[in-house]
Amino acid sequence: MKYQRARLEKDFKELATFGSLETGGFTRVAFSLEDIAARSWLQEAMEAAGLEVIVDAVGNIRGRRAGLEDLPPVMLGSHLDTVPEGGNYDGSVGVLAALEIVRVLNDYDFQTNRPIEVINFAAEESSRFGVATIGSKALTGKLDRESLHSLVDKDGFSLYETLEANGYHPENIAYTSLESDQVHAFIELHIEQGPVLEEKNCPIGIVTSIAAPTRFKVTVLGRADHSGNTPMDMRKDALVGASEMVIGVEKIAGELAGSNTVATVGYLNVSPGVMNVVPGRVEFGVDLRDNCMADKNIAAAKIIELIESIAHKRELEVSYEQLCNDEPVTLSEKIITTLQLSAKQLGLPFIVLPSGAGHDAMNMARITDVGMIFIPSVGGVSHNIEEFSRMEDICAGTELLFEATLRLAQEK
Amino acid sequence: MKYQRARLEKDFKELATFGSLETGGFTRVAFSLEDIAARSWLQEAMEAAGLEVIVDAVGNIRGRRAGLEDLPPVMLGSHLDTVPEGGNYDGSVGVLAALEIVRVLNDYDFQTNRPIEVINFAAEESSRFGVATIGSKALTGKLDRESLHSLVDKDGFSLYETLEANGYHPENIAYTSLESDQVHAFIELHIEQGPVLEEKNCPIGIVTSIAAPTRFKVTVLGRADHSGNTPMDMRKDALVGASEMVIGVEKIAGELAGSNTVATVGYLNVSPGVMNVVPGRVEFGVDLRDNCMADKNIAAAKIIELIESIAHKRELEVSYEQLCNDEPVTLSEKIITTLQLSAKQLGLPFIVLPSGAGHDAMNMARITDVGMIFIPSVGGVSHNIEEFSRMEDICAGTELLFEATLRLAQEK
Repeated sequence: MKYQRARLEKDFKELATFGSLETGGFTRVAFSLEDIAARSWLQEAMEAAGLEVIVDAVGNIRGRRAGLEDLPPVMLGSHLDTVPEGGNYDGSVGVLAALEIVRVLNDYDFQTNRPIEVINFAAEESSRFGVATIGSKALTGKLDRESLHSLVDKDGFSLYETLEANGYHPENIAYTSLESDQVHAFIELHIEQGPVLEEKNCPIGIVTSIAAPTRFKVTVLGRADHSGNTPMDMRKDALVGASEMVIGVEKIAGELAGSNTVATVGYLNVSPGVMNVVPGRVEFGVDLRDNCMADKNIAAAKIIELIESIAHKRELEVSYEQLCNDEPVTLSEKIITTLQLSAKQLGLPFIVLPSGAGHDAMNMARITDVGMIFIPSVGGVSHNIEEFSRMEDICAGTELLFEATLRLAQEK
Repeated sequence: MKYQRARLEKDFKELATFGSLETGGFTRVAFSLEDIAARSWLQEAMEAAGLEVIVDAVGNIRGRRAGLEDLPPVMLGSHLDTVPEGGNYDGSVGVLAALEIVRVLNDYDFQTNRPIEVINFAAEESSRFGVATIGSKALTGKLDRESLHSLVDKDGFSLYETLEANGYHPENIAYTSLESDQVHAFIELHIEQGPVLEEKNCPIGIVTSIAAPTRFKVTVLGRADHSGNTPMDMRKDALVGASEMVIGVEKIAGELAGSNTVATVGYLNVSPGVMNVVPGRVEFGVDLRDNCMADKNIAAAKIIELIESIAHKRELEVSYEQLCNDEPVTLSEKIITTLQLSAKQLGLPFIVLPSGAGHDAMNMARITDVGMIFIPSVGGVSHNIEEFSRMEDICAGTELLFEATLRLAQEK
């Protein structure tokens, strides 16, 4: 039994019709018109593959292929939504490979012992609501009704309203989550989004752990003044202060924390934001990640200390809000072993590595045995219109995912 | 003959109904609905004061009171437009004081030898079109038809389109400018927008020279990457690079250039500008000002050198566009002397000082004898909702403007 490369390629081409940009990139922000269109397309494809599809309270699309026995299923999947100006591979590789695996089983009319479930998690990217992996958080019981109201996008729409407007049933959030005894295992195939596999010229990464983010929203208040008549030594320039903070965040992550620590200021908004006024107010976000909670805590403390000391030195007011502080996750040794044995059997070269990016797998690991497979990202680039993964690597990943799924789905 | 404080106060109260914010500030951006409403109100008040009013191709509102002889007039005025979230005094003091002077002359039925012209310059603030003192530039022949098309606001509307949409006649730009022999003198009364008068507890500043801006738009190109899976040492973060530039601009103005040099990064836009993507592109503006052209040139060269060296060090691409490079202006010795003699006669304490901010007076100085009077800004603050000037200082400024105007208007 083997995947059909042409069928998989066709899926990627069809998916590429949703949210494609003139620049070559893709924008399918969670629950945007483009994302909704891609989701409809996927749901039809899942139904065409004979899956019994449900869409839950937060929009996770789940399609089940029955097993010989009514046991907890092996779940496979990832997400189709993207960051603004992102690519066509981040997330979608794991969804389309899972779909292909079901179709191969259909081709051979092969009945697995356990059910297999394909899932497209909703709103994995944080671009819209400021919080990532919303779908898998809901599926693992980490979101309540209140939080659906409190997550709001930049236009003021809450997640709850957005779900309702798209015909979903957020009021059923309490019935969405799975318990540990309802899932046998979960495997997510994903692009690496980093440079390691490419540098080592290796098609497969087997992931050992997943870094988790700690995020802050920081507000710096200075005083807006005339840019011509305010002497340099009498200013309270919120942007110069914020700039020192941005540089400090880079330095802390690069030199003063753990070897896997990364930290980013991804957005920064200046007010009033015109040529001839000294900035009176700046708001920015800090995204801090680490595979090691202790290292991450050290970095977070250093960042807060830095922000406060710069504010004090420059007589600026500063306030910050912690948006999340997630625990890094160690993946299942059982699944890591299964993946290693499967790769060896298939003759696929692999390396074992940690993930610097968060994934839905991170939430799933709280309720079941979880594994992750990485394939190379060309240039290490993702969340960018240049994001690309080669079809031969996607095929290698699909092959490994299939082999490991078979092993797990045949377990009693 | 003396100004009527109550009448002047009433003008400020009426003007305050246009563009007032809940925060206490004012937004009357050039040719916005609020600015247009304020302009209509002014035009009616000028006509009620018996002035013969014309509105020229770029929207300057000019109102003339005839003299006994048909000689070039003494011109008085400033502007009513504001920055976003600015105050009710920057510019308007000079316009309303000029209007009051005409009304006092009417009260006493006093005929001056020369005509007196009250002017409200259009679009003095650069907030909308990125270029300041548009009205006085046009009146002194520094804007042609082409430039009305090339000045574009952030919504893509050109100045030409904006003027047309408001019923003005930009096609007549060629007939708008004045020659040297058409104006006898120009005096602008304005708030200081700085802290010097208040610190010295002095109601009047007589201005000797006006700093002029050099402005750049700088674009920094890095690479947008995933914020979790891109190691710190493999990033090309446009925002961290831009932050170093912002800090460098402050340092150059504060320590490495002339004693009157000021430089500001007032706006900075990050792209894609989301929490979980390393910034790939940043655009910001540099506003550099000095009373001394040589010092300003040194600072501009250092800023360019700094920007290029940071870009080189961080492997970022950088491009910059010079938006303007205006010459600082020395004001008329004759008018400075007239103002000093007038202040002494009135018993008004004054100091003589340079202006760090640009004004319409700077353009007018190219065609006629120009003077400027400053009155204190409380806290040195302007371009801010906290902007405030006391009515007693406005009255002192009006008294001095009146006295100097009478002296100049009686000249043969």
